Amino acid sequence: MRLARAAPLLVRSAATTATAAPAAALKAGDALRSRRRRFTEDDVAAYAGVSGDRNPVHLDDAFARGTGGFQGGRVVHGMLVASLFPALIASHFPGAVYASQSLKFAAPVHVGDEVVAQVKALHIKAAGARHIVKFATKCFRDDDEETLAIDGEAMAFLPTLQLKAEAME
Amino acid sequence: MRLARAAPLLVRSAATTATAAPAAALKAGDALRSRRRRFTEDDVAAYAGVSGDRNPVHLDDAFARGTGGFQGGRVVHGMLVASLFPALIASHFPGAVYASQSLKFAAPVHVGDEVVAQVKALHIKAAGARHIVKFATKCFRDDDEETLAIDGEAMAFLPTLQLKAEAME
Repeated sequence: MRLARAAPLLVRSAATTATAAPAAALKAGDALRSRRRRFTEDDVAAYAGVSGDRNPVHLDDAFARGTGGFQGGRVVHGMLVASLFPALIASHFPGAVYASQSLKFAAPVHVGDEVVAQVKALHIKAAGARHIVKFATKCFRDDDEETLAIDGEAMAFLPTLQLKAEAME
Repeated sequence: MRLARAAPLLVRSAATTATAAPAAALKAGDALRSRRRRFTEDDVAAYAGVSGDRNPVHLDDAFARGTGGFQGGRVVHGMLVASLFPALIASHFPGAVYASQSLKFAAPVHVGDEVVAQVKALHIKAAGARHIVKFATKCFRDDDEETLAIDGEAMAFLPTLQLKAEAME
């Protein structure tokens, strides 16, 4: 399975189909893309609640434009946007366990912006009964320029390299 | 202001005090600690909802112990625990803007575990009207051994080095 950037991954088996398609195995070079996601005001409020991060750059438009220096107003918490990476990996590999993640916040994601996350397997190595996989992790704003919003890498232990036939996202 | 590990930072001015204490300025070497935080089952469910990360290692005790290999059962999403770092920085420096974060997940945090986050200023550099600060970011489980759960570094732009007299957390 090789997925071009233009083809968001939507692996879905019809519930009425009696025979499931054979599961593909992850190989170095494979990329997986999330569905488009728009973070709403309610999402940002819910995340502020559970994380305790009430930085006014996320909650107050005037503050975000002034002190924050964000002309587009309130920005989504970077760590909330970054949560798309483990969510995407876990949706294809339930039981994945995160070992590390680096994140460079390259461009802001504003409330209401659509984003798409992409993870690409760089290296795969057996680790006992599991596999340890290094992923390049990128999140793009779904605008005309496909602006890179977050760049980084993650290491995760996967219980299997077989992609789940029906993504859980 | 030099804060030892044993002294959680609770900068609080009494609401009835007419004169505020002069704000301290952040210096390289200063460490800030969060209050203790216990992530509950409800927190994990709320975060799974807003992030879309429904990895069963976070939601299903039997799965976490089996496939996940976590003897203590369900683990809190690592990125939720890591949200304590920007939350802590923003509580002292409202308007802080994250530039980068690296995270190494060294030990699991289970639902119900108490944790404490700590950020320590490593380097401070002027950046126009703001300052760019490199922080060492560590999160400890509040057990007898103070187990290191997350290790890493963050870069953030701060609108000022003056610590907010009353932390927002």
